[in-house]
Amino acid sequence: MGRTSDAGERILAAARSLIELRGYSALGVAEICKAAGVPKGSFYYFYESKEALALAVIDEHWANQERSWKQVLSGGGEPLQRLRRLFEVTVAAQSAGQESCGTISGCLFGNLTLEMSNQTEAIRGRLQEIFDAQVDLVETVVVEALAQGEITVADAREAARSVVAQLEGQVLFAKLYNDTERLGPLWANCLALLGAHTPGEASAAR
Amino acid sequence: MGRTSDAGERILAAARSLIELRGYSALGVAEICKAAGVPKGSFYYFYESKEALALAVIDEHWANQERSWKQVLSGGGEPLQRLRRLFEVTVAAQSAGQESCGTISGCLFGNLTLEMSNQTEAIRGRLQEIFDAQVDLVETVVVEALAQGEITVADAREAARSVVAQLEGQVLFAKLYNDTERLGPLWANCLALLGAHTPGEASAAR
Repeated sequence: MGRTSDAGERILAAARSLIELRGYSALGVAEICKAAGVPKGSFYYFYESKEALALAVIDEHWANQERSWKQVLSGGGEPLQRLRRLFEVTVAAQSAGQESCGTISGCLFGNLTLEMSNQTEAIRGRLQEIFDAQVDLVETVVVEALAQGEITVADAREAARSVVAQLEGQVLFAKLYNDTERLGPLWANCLALLGAHTPGEASAAR
Repeated sequence: MGRTSDAGERILAAARSLIELRGYSALGVAEICKAAGVPKGSFYYFYESKEALALAVIDEHWANQERSWKQVLSGGGEPLQRLRRLFEVTVAAQSAGQESCGTISGCLFGNLTLEMSNQTEAIRGRLQEIFDAQVDLVETVVVEALAQGEITVADAREAARSVVAQLEGQVLFAKLYNDTERLGPLWANCLALLGAHTPGEASAAR
């Protein structure tokens, strides 16, 4: 039983690495099982389909990332400083990925959105839930900053969406140019998108 | 000869549609030839490899898009209004795609960046050149707006990159939620990212 559950975990870990490196479509069940060192026949004991495995990879990745985002965004400190910390954590994660793989793999959710969202409704739905949850977390901080008079936005949710969109766009370029320096403007851009009333910081950032 | 060259164009057109719908990795040469109504054996008469075909699809798409971007951004009118027109053209293109396919296919270059840039250096290099050219076009307008005192940015190139990144990020969400309304904030966000001195417009947009 110990070995069996270990095989399930090895399949999940192998799928996670392979999807990060090469996306979902390019992978076959045989290749995943080979990388996991598990007989192909046992795959369907653990996962109903390749899609079910992809959903498990997405869920596991979000469980980790959600913990990190909540820790940063719901923790102590001024609201805007918590947003700044979110970008620092993002840069650190992309840099760590680059050091271990040689290339920046980008955002797993963004990657799968552009690769898969028009192909399977199950994956599209799950990714929508995850980005909604990201926007929820950012929106909470935006509302706090608004209440403290630190920023000016008419629509906190739309502003939070724009901050997350800017993050996805810059991570896309960091991946394309394999360069974490591309993430440098995130903080200044966030201040600009939120109409931050911190002239010293905003002008220094620009 | 007439028929032969027609077959080459049919392969290109079939590849363009299939890549827009399902990405690059999921496709095989046999499927592309079947969709094009061309015998599989003739594929390699026109293209050295599937990668060479993908590069041809990318080049053709950029030739069309570059023409449109140049027309909009280098045309007459105030600099900021030309940027606004770029977003209108983008929304129109995504809406037209949604009407014809039922789903928003997003930006071909962004899609291939997240799917492919870590897998083939030839595709990564070509996509870098295209995004550099997009940033060049936007930067020229940013420099003009700066000279006219309409905006405040310390680094015109970085500002242009951020405008293009915001565009890619919002198009990603438009695709995920299959909703062109997601592109609504592009203009207001562009003004914010550029530190536009048009209080009436900026506050109306916010």
